[in-house]
Amino acid sequence: MKSGRRVAILSPVAWRTPPRQYGAWETVAGNVAEGLVARGWDVTLFATGDSVTSARLHSVVARGYEEDPSIDPKVAEYLHIPEVFEHASEFDLIHSHYDFMALAYSRLVKTPVVTTIHGFSSPRILPVYRKYGDSYFVSISDSDRLPGLNYVATVYNGIDLSLYPFRPAGGDDLVFLGRIHPDKGVHLAIEAALLSGRRLVIAGIVQDVAYFEERVRPHLDGHNIRYIGPVDVAGKNELFARAYALLHLNTIPERFGLVLAEANAAGVPVIAMDLGSCREVVADGVTGFLAANVPEAARCLDRIPQIDRGACRQRVEQRFSMAAMAAEYERVYLAVLEKEERKMA
Amino acid sequence: MKSGRRVAILSPVAWRTPPRQYGAWETVAGNVAEGLVARGWDVTLFATGDSVTSARLHSVVARGYEEDPSIDPKVAEYLHIPEVFEHASEFDLIHSHYDFMALAYSRLVKTPVVTTIHGFSSPRILPVYRKYGDSYFVSISDSDRLPGLNYVATVYNGIDLSLYPFRPAGGDDLVFLGRIHPDKGVHLAIEAALLSGRRLVIAGIVQDVAYFEERVRPHLDGHNIRYIGPVDVAGKNELFARAYALLHLNTIPERFGLVLAEANAAGVPVIAMDLGSCREVVADGVTGFLAANVPEAARCLDRIPQIDRGACRQRVEQRFSMAAMAAEYERVYLAVLEKEERKMA
Repeated sequence: MKSGRRVAILSPVAWRTPPRQYGAWETVAGNVAEGLVARGWDVTLFATGDSVTSARLHSVVARGYEEDPSIDPKVAEYLHIPEVFEHASEFDLIHSHYDFMALAYSRLVKTPVVTTIHGFSSPRILPVYRKYGDSYFVSISDSDRLPGLNYVATVYNGIDLSLYPFRPAGGDDLVFLGRIHPDKGVHLAIEAALLSGRRLVIAGIVQDVAYFEERVRPHLDGHNIRYIGPVDVAGKNELFARAYALLHLNTIPERFGLVLAEANAAGVPVIAMDLGSCREVVADGVTGFLAANVPEAARCLDRIPQIDRGACRQRVEQRFSMAAMAAEYERVYLAVLEKEERKMA
Repeated sequence: MKSGRRVAILSPVAWRTPPRQYGAWETVAGNVAEGLVARGWDVTLFATGDSVTSARLHSVVARGYEEDPSIDPKVAEYLHIPEVFEHASEFDLIHSHYDFMALAYSRLVKTPVVTTIHGFSSPRILPVYRKYGDSYFVSISDSDRLPGLNYVATVYNGIDLSLYPFRPAGGDDLVFLGRIHPDKGVHLAIEAALLSGRRLVIAGIVQDVAYFEERVRPHLDGHNIRYIGPVDVAGKNELFARAYALLHLNTIPERFGLVLAEANAAGVPVIAMDLGSCREVVADGVTGFLAANVPEAARCLDRIPQIDRGACRQRVEQRFSMAAMAAEYERVYLAVLEKEERKMA
């Protein structure tokens, strides 16, 4: 039934697909493409020209606008998004990872459009989602849903397990991995580390410079609390190899939390704030612990040895792997195509 | 031939159409709609909900995003532009005043799209124009053209003459009217005024605050050089009533220069820098003077009494009136529709 089915996957063009470092949406879009190719679909990935994929690559924007200051983000967007819709008749289905902007084109083509909502960046964008609420939507966690939209499924983000080898034994460091931004609770991770008397390594891009200067830098001492800048996949693995646990004390509801799955994949237990999707990604007491506040997070640190690192890996393989995600998206595509065929009949 | 022809006019939603004060693109889009209604076309204006028009008004954005900070510009854009394309089949032609953004949708509908290019804001946007270069384009002056685009015509902007009553006698003031921005040469107008020993009244929104503080404010003395803030149409007319001449010493090529036509309509002679379209709008020695630099502009001020104020009005009536513009656009629409019919045949 699926053989010969042609799907277009629309990735953002902020970063290369897959991104060199930061870029969660591009990571997922790239992994969906890889997973669907592996399952025998005819996949065209619409992404930057320097993207790397097993799918057919279609690009009109050479490099990510976050990586090349000569590229105007708005112009890149207005070149890239219409491109997939102008080729809509060549596909049975378009799978968009391009937020509300791609929805604006969706009613102008006959090809069905499935949109994975990677998060609502602001309540201001909701009117666009509401206007196109009868389109097909996928949420990345049950907790991150806007009532009234036509959701087809929740599909958890899947990671490339081969990138994160399992490590049966960890080290002594606490690790924070993510954007340096108040939402990600870097300051809470520092508090928890200080409370527990453990060393903390912080890695990630500084997205909020004032926050970094005021709430992070004053604690950096080059030993107990260290900031090492952004890291690529190799860098993440080095951190995981010496990690006692990943600290992810987010201050707002997490939409998915890709890094939690990456850490678990490497066998690293996760302590996360019980907000948003964290409860769906972390199995409390099995692959880490959920905490309500910093003192609780610090107490959980003493219970880390109870966590079976093999169980962490296993749960990611079952639920948050590229293969699991691709199988889920295949189910979504087939359901949508069946609905469309029924409409036509 | 034109009766029953349905045209959609897409105005920007930065400001109301017509704008209360600043907003040249909305002014022109609104005037095209009025002029075409007067010529018997079935016109639908896509603009903000508070717009005022004789055409049918279609709106999904309540107010201009520059006038209501609760409205996100990007969201307004992504709600507003697709709306006209989603209704494309109801129109024989879509006339866009929405820059390169509307072009991105143009290939997804069968209805022909004519785009008036109100100016190229940056060389970075040219790739989008080049991609859609085979669409239909109108330039607002012969001087503001991008080689390689499929231009159908130059149509000069037309103003509503009833808004600018003719004044046979002027006053003694020099007037600057426009955005306070280096491109508009406010500092050069001040220099010319100081050289000539005449009073200057400056009106317009401050678009570049640093420029205003450094190059304009130090000269303000409440008498010889005055800044009175932005003005509406009534305010413009008050200025024209006491104007000796309009000083428009732009530092970059002007794309059209609506204010030059407005001043001329009121009978006010114009002294403009000989850059871009100024030579097309101002008839040198007839409706004002073109200057190459500030001393020349100051010398031209002595020759203002040679200008026949009635000739200023007359030239605007013939070339830059709403009626003249509507007649030109009608010609453009009919030519495009004929081309499209030939394609179909």
